[in-house]
Amino acid sequence: MAAARHSTLDFMLGATADCNAVLKALQPVFQEQGMTETVHNWEDHGYLATYIKKNGSFANLRVHPHGLVLVDLQSYNDHAKGREETDQLLNKVEERMKEVFHGNLKRVKRLPAILRGGVIDRYWPTADGRLVEYDIDEVVYDEDSPFQNIKILHSKQFGNILILSGDVNLAESDLAYTRAIMGSGKEDYTGKEVLILGGGDGGILYEIVKLNPKMVTMVEIDQMVIDGCKKHMRKTCGDVLDNLKGECYEVLIEDCIPVLKRYAKEGRMFDYVINDLTAVPISTSPEEDSTWEFLRLILDLSMKVLKQDGKYFTQGNCINLTDALTLYEEQLNRLYCPVEFSKEIVCVPSYMELWVFYTIWKKQTEV
Amino acid sequence: MAAARHSTLDFMLGATADCNAVLKALQPVFQEQGMTETVHNWEDHGYLATYIKKNGSFANLRVHPHGLVLVDLQSYNDHAKGREETDQLLNKVEERMKEVFHGNLKRVKRLPAILRGGVIDRYWPTADGRLVEYDIDEVVYDEDSPFQNIKILHSKQFGNILILSGDVNLAESDLAYTRAIMGSGKEDYTGKEVLILGGGDGGILYEIVKLNPKMVTMVEIDQMVIDGCKKHMRKTCGDVLDNLKGECYEVLIEDCIPVLKRYAKEGRMFDYVINDLTAVPISTSPEEDSTWEFLRLILDLSMKVLKQDGKYFTQGNCINLTDALTLYEEQLNRLYCPVEFSKEIVCVPSYMELWVFYTIWKKQTEV
Repeated sequence: MAAARHSTLDFMLGATADCNAVLKALQPVFQEQGMTETVHNWEDHGYLATYIKKNGSFANLRVHPHGLVLVDLQSYNDHAKGREETDQLLNKVEERMKEVFHGNLKRVKRLPAILRGGVIDRYWPTADGRLVEYDIDEVVYDEDSPFQNIKILHSKQFGNILILSGDVNLAESDLAYTRAIMGSGKEDYTGKEVLILGGGDGGILYEIVKLNPKMVTMVEIDQMVIDGCKKHMRKTCGDVLDNLKGECYEVLIEDCIPVLKRYAKEGRMFDYVINDLTAVPISTSPEEDSTWEFLRLILDLSMKVLKQDGKYFTQGNCINLTDALTLYEEQLNRLYCPVEFSKEIVCVPSYMELWVFYTIWKKQTEV
Repeated sequence: MAAARHSTLDFMLGATADCNAVLKALQPVFQEQGMTETVHNWEDHGYLATYIKKNGSFANLRVHPHGLVLVDLQSYNDHAKGREETDQLLNKVEERMKEVFHGNLKRVKRLPAILRGGVIDRYWPTADGRLVEYDIDEVVYDEDSPFQNIKILHSKQFGNILILSGDVNLAESDLAYTRAIMGSGKEDYTGKEVLILGGGDGGILYEIVKLNPKMVTMVEIDQMVIDGCKKHMRKTCGDVLDNLKGECYEVLIEDCIPVLKRYAKEGRMFDYVINDLTAVPISTSPEEDSTWEFLRLILDLSMKVLKQDGKYFTQGNCINLTDALTLYEEQLNRLYCPVEFSKEIVCVPSYMELWVFYTIWKKQTEV
């Protein structure tokens, strides 16, 4: 399917614009391309001129009386020649504006063109809602499991990226994430009992198994995540997902809630619990949202299976989502047992935003 | 000046679209808003419908016969109510499309809205030409020096960011950059002679001065970069730029070429030369571009003032710009003396792309 290429070019004039002068200056540039013009005049809000070309491309010229001039151009992205023509048209518009408004041009801004409707989707906004484009050049895996949409997309610089229901989870470049959620190299896993909640990409499991633990149990609900990652995220998981059972580890394909309940009932205890399930929900009204209750349930059950001197690691959220982070920390005050926590800010390469990780432990009763 | 808010909403239909059916389905949604319609019918390229509202906002509905439906909406960003109205209109369009084309809707994509023409510019494309939005909330400094435009913009997560002529140079979050261009913690600077070329943000100088060097000489051409950074990039430079001379360092406000020539003539030698001048030029035709000659001149002169067992550090470029990196490495084979090099890939938080750093040293003659 042919994608559309959307180009923008913006001008900020220093003083109030003579809308008519802008229109007059640029009309010939579009008309030279054989584009047909339609003009709407708001009187009090300036002009919108639309230019239509026979080949299916079109341009908008929006002139605001306060001096903002916005040019949009939509064309097909299917051949290099078309892209060149688009760029040449924008160059001509820019030249003409500089000629005519030379001294009065405060800023010119041309953004990289946006590809819309392509087979490969390069736009995966950050957790704090910013528009970012990835250097994705291949759809490696794209399936719907009973739980979520699972995509693995190839980025030139980050390697394969796991995207679950639209959220960038982890790329092969992101050892920094795995290191952070394991305690940033400050823990000794030798001979320890470890429980991983989620973690279907296999990164945490792969790294801990190298450290001679006694036993690592990983509880992942979605077999299809494991299947996709063991094939396409091998820089992250190595061969650890090839078998669900190894000398010092076991992967259970189960919902972690009943497993945690079972372990709590049996009195099974762990040195480390690593929650790699989901980011903190963004909702700021926890009363209305059972997600916070769910999070607290996980935390409470995890504390029940955590040894008195054990540690619980989890990711928090983007550092900019301060409300969500505060709400999460409030939940920590509402657990069945008193806990303390520390946090660390880490740069995870493929996230394009700084991420907060938590270490939580049971408050030691004073002797 | 009121910025414009540009929202997009894209639909990919599974099969060839009945363009007329899309138009018919969405017309009422726009008309309910009191928007006036103009329709262009290409026959072979589908429809463009333009909807104009009295308050100066407008929408485009572009229906492609191959099943791509693109909605654009431009409105003022000046008040929350207007933004809500825009979002509600897009919600209605999305609901209506889902209602009518339920089974045939392959993908729906709504990008974060783009702010165009605002006082604060949040869009600073990466070196490899990708569109990325920063969380910038304040213009801290914006001046033209005789050499370049100097901006310092505040990012919520990265702190203040130095942007030179549109290129993101360094943010207060970017100690990773400074560490990398100093040799990633593997060097012992105690008692050493160090030469920094450029480095006006003061980051390298500040970090090396902590390590008890014998003498650090920094040569920066642009006093205004230093003035801006010493005031607004203090997490990067500390107090090191408050005076151009300290116990073990000196800052020369000069073009580094004549300084290097002088040192070479005098026979002054350094243990480390750190080139923090500019990224590798992106041009792929070095014959036509004197930038490569300039780079080679710097390299040659630097090698002349570098001790036989000294090291030269520099940044390369974005890892994706492989042609530029290859060309750079070719230059290294064309210096007056044989050199060897290694490179390292580093994640610099504010860059939103992986960056290559070089270590270069004189080839040791075999005994």
